[in-house]
Amino acid sequence: MPQQLLRVQNFSVSSDGIAAGEDQSLDRPFGHVDPGDLFAWAEATASWPYRTAPGGTRGIDDYFVRDFSHNIGAEIMGRNKFGPQRGPWPDHTWHGWWGNEPPFHTPVFVMTHHPRPSFTLSDTTFHFVDADPQTVLQLARQAAGGKDVRLGGGVTTIRQFLDAGLVDTLHVAVVPVKLGTGLRLWNTPEELLDRYHLEVVPSPTGVAHHLFWRR
Amino acid sequence: MPQQLLRVQNFSVSSDGIAAGEDQSLDRPFGHVDPGDLFAWAEATASWPYRTAPGGTRGIDDYFVRDFSHNIGAEIMGRNKFGPQRGPWPDHTWHGWWGNEPPFHTPVFVMTHHPRPSFTLSDTTFHFVDADPQTVLQLARQAAGGKDVRLGGGVTTIRQFLDAGLVDTLHVAVVPVKLGTGLRLWNTPEELLDRYHLEVVPSPTGVAHHLFWRR
Repeated sequence: MPQQLLRVQNFSVSSDGIAAGEDQSLDRPFGHVDPGDLFAWAEATASWPYRTAPGGTRGIDDYFVRDFSHNIGAEIMGRNKFGPQRGPWPDHTWHGWWGNEPPFHTPVFVMTHHPRPSFTLSDTTFHFVDADPQTVLQLARQAAGGKDVRLGGGVTTIRQFLDAGLVDTLHVAVVPVKLGTGLRLWNTPEELLDRYHLEVVPSPTGVAHHLFWRR
Repeated sequence: MPQQLLRVQNFSVSSDGIAAGEDQSLDRPFGHVDPGDLFAWAEATASWPYRTAPGGTRGIDDYFVRDFSHNIGAEIMGRNKFGPQRGPWPDHTWHGWWGNEPPFHTPVFVMTHHPRPSFTLSDTTFHFVDADPQTVLQLARQAAGGKDVRLGGGVTTIRQFLDAGLVDTLHVAVVPVKLGTGLRLWNTPEELLDRYHLEVVPSPTGVAHHLFWRR
């Protein structure tokens, strides 16, 4: 029986470690940061889930994009990856940023201090949980049917699970753009070297894929 | 409906392009070549299918190893990847080099001028086909249930499908060892550049992962 890992996958940050702006709104999920800067590497690949035209690259970036769903049975995300609301939900009619065909295809556990009823869009079911990381991970593992669990972000959620020592592997795509201000994953990837092995794999597209696994 | 690709995966060659020795025998599937030289990079990974001890690396080499079965619905192999016999089969009691739990978990089409009855070991069924590459690929695609087809090798088989223009993507792991003589995939990977894009991804283990996809 293989171990059920908690994995961060395809999480993109700038060369200075920033994954999103602070001024998040309904129209701007990444605040002042242009998500195109962070995700262009993935959008160019053949396996990009939102691709409409044929074509796309099939090099190393494509391996990471197509590994996104491979052996994943559930996702955990912070509330700010679901929507921009803070505090009590104004209503339950808005179903998040992810459209009617969310790219998760599994149960998704949204961490929030304001639970609301679960709902299903296509083959993705969103659950809303007010609990600590250990408890949420336990729920996600139970729902994952023996597969791994993806830790989807954002930054605050990933840092919370890192602090709790719960993350088994991380794939962070460091893109060659500097953002200056925003929500920061790290000052330098070396902060994790006391707890993780690190391989840095340069892609010809300029992205440096950072692969961490537990020591 | 995504395209069904024909993919070469995790095919290991020496720095001088050699994948096996010429003097193949029952005891030495790779002839004079030590398969340990060619596959050490894969054996060190957490996802190596024959791993018995826990542990193993989870860096870039592991991505390739765990991608081996991902979205693959059938394999095509040459007869020499099945066994060392030449000419008519001496008998049908020997079931190939792959043991009672072959690592394929799909239908496998063995190309041979000497067909014999199909048989199943665990969740792998071996079929024996005397046909040209186009026909074998058609059979494998039908059996793959919409998934991709892996072209498993050896060298002679891969070259045959390359010459027929049937290979969509190739992942060739070039290991940092020189073998001098044996069955050669190429003199240099540049031979394929008229037909394929190429990305070379260096692994910290010294392997250079060569990723080709059609122009």
